Amino acid sequence: MKYIESVNNPKVKQWKKLLTKKERDKSGTFLIEGFHLVEEALKQGEQILEVIVSEKVDLPPRWDPAGTPVTLVTEEISNSLSETEAPQGIYAVCRQTVSEVGEAKTFLFIDAVQDPGNFGTMIRTADAAGIDAVVVGRGSVDIFNSKVLRSAQGSHFHLPIIKGDLHEWINKLQGENIPVYGTALEGASEYTKVSKSDSFALVVGNEGNGVSQDILASTTANLYIPIYGKSESLNVAVATGILLYYLKK
Amino acid sequence: MKYIESVNNPKVKQWKKLLTKKERDKSGTFLIEGFHLVEEALKQGEQILEVIVSEKVDLPPRWDPAGTPVTLVTEEISNSLSETEAPQGIYAVCRQTVSEVGEAKTFLFIDAVQDPGNFGTMIRTADAAGIDAVVVGRGSVDIFNSKVLRSAQGSHFHLPIIKGDLHEWINKLQGENIPVYGTALEGASEYTKVSKSDSFALVVGNEGNGVSQDILASTTANLYIPIYGKSESLNVAVATGILLYYLKK
Repeated sequence: MKYIESVNNPKVKQWKKLLTKKERDKSGTFLIEGFHLVEEALKQGEQILEVIVSEKVDLPPRWDPAGTPVTLVTEEISNSLSETEAPQGIYAVCRQTVSEVGEAKTFLFIDAVQDPGNFGTMIRTADAAGIDAVVVGRGSVDIFNSKVLRSAQGSHFHLPIIKGDLHEWINKLQGENIPVYGTALEGASEYTKVSKSDSFALVVGNEGNGVSQDILASTTANLYIPIYGKSESLNVAVATGILLYYLKK
Repeated sequence: MKYIESVNNPKVKQWKKLLTKKERDKSGTFLIEGFHLVEEALKQGEQILEVIVSEKVDLPPRWDPAGTPVTLVTEEISNSLSETEAPQGIYAVCRQTVSEVGEAKTFLFIDAVQDPGNFGTMIRTADAAGIDAVVVGRGSVDIFNSKVLRSAQGSHFHLPIIKGDLHEWINKLQGENIPVYGTALEGASEYTKVSKSDSFALVVGNEGNGVSQDILASTTANLYIPIYGKSESLNVAVATGILLYYLKK
C-alpha cells in the first residue's frame, strides 16, 4: 500500500483540485467521500479508480477494495480533502463514465435545478422509483458536486445520469411515442388524470421558476400536483417523488 | 416608527437570544427572517408581535404591517440577527401559540426527525397535502429552529404544529377509530394496499433508524414504499410526500 505524507505531493494536489468543477470536467473524474459512497463505488466496480484512506481510520475487518489501488495518507491530507464537518477519512477517485442509456424506457429530465441537496435527493428518488436514466439539461448544479453526491447516497453508481439537450431528448422520445410530461402550476392537468405507463419521461424544473416555458410548450402534456392547504408549492424533490411513484406502473 | 442604533440596546439583545432554543422555550416566542416568512406571518396575523427592518431595506410601496409595531435598525444590528448568507434585512418576532387541534382529522406524527431541512420540508408537505395538524414527538429538532422555519416556507402559520407524546396520541386516535399508519421497511404492507381515508395519522421517523419500535408496535398498520431500483431508501421528506398524497382522499 502506498503511503503519502507530504501535502505537496502532486497526487494530493490533483485530488484537491477535484473539489472544483473545472478540474472534474477536465479530468473526467470526481472525488467521493465517506464509507457509504466508497462502498457503493466498490460494489459497482466500473467507475472507481483509487481509494484514499487516512492512517487514523480503522478499516472494517473484512473490508475489501477488490483490486482497487489504495493509498494511505496522513490525517492532515485526509482533512484537506474533506467537505464535511465530520470527515470519515476515506475517499475515492471515480471516472465520470458517460453511461450508455441504451434500452432506457423511463426517464427523469432535470431542467435547471440549482440546490445540490434537492438535486441529489431527486437522483436518489429516481433510483428508488426504478427510473432507467436521468438526463440533466443546462443550468443545473454540477452532477458531481460533493453535496449532490452526498444527497444522492450512492445512486450515482446505480443508474446513468447524463448531460443532454432536453429539447433534443423530448423530440427523440416523442418520435418513439414515449410520452413526456412537464410539470407546471398553470395550464396543466392534475397528475392523477394521466395513465400509468411502462415508458415515460418526467421533466422537473428550477425551484423558483419551474420548468422553462419553451420546454413546457414541447411536452406531450403538463401535470400539476394539487395543493390542498395554504402552502404555495411543494419542494421539487418531494414533487418528483410523488409524480414518479404515481406514474411508474 | 422606533429606531434603534445601539447593538447594546436591550431589545436587540433579546432578539439575538431568540436564535437559541433555550430562549425561545423560555419566552414562548421565535424569530423569523426574510420577506416571505414575514409576509406569511402578517397574513395570518395572530402570532406576529413585531417587525424589525434594516434602514437599508426598501420596503415595497404598498407594504402593510397592518398595525404590527415596526422597529427600524442599523444594517449592523440587522446582520447580527441573520442566520442566512444573504440577509434580506427584515425580521419578525412571533408568538409560539399552542394551537388548538380541535376538529383535526388528518395528522402527520413526526418521531425524532433531526435534520432541520427535512423537518421543515415535511411541515411544508403536510400543509400542501391539506393535513390538519402536525404532532412532534420527542427527539426531533426544535419546531422553531431557523432552518426549519426557512424550509417550511411559512407553513408554520398555516397549520397547528404541536409537541406531544406520540403514544398518547396514538391511543386517543385509535379510541376514535382513526387509523394510525406507521412506516417501516420490514413487517409492513405496501402502502397502496391501504384505502384512502377522510381521517388518518401517518407516523414518519428518524432518518437513520426510522420510526421507533415501540411506536410501530402500537399502530393500526405499518406501511412501506417499495424500492424498485438499487437505492436503500427514500429521503424521509420525499417518503412523507408520497404517502400523504396517496392516503389523502
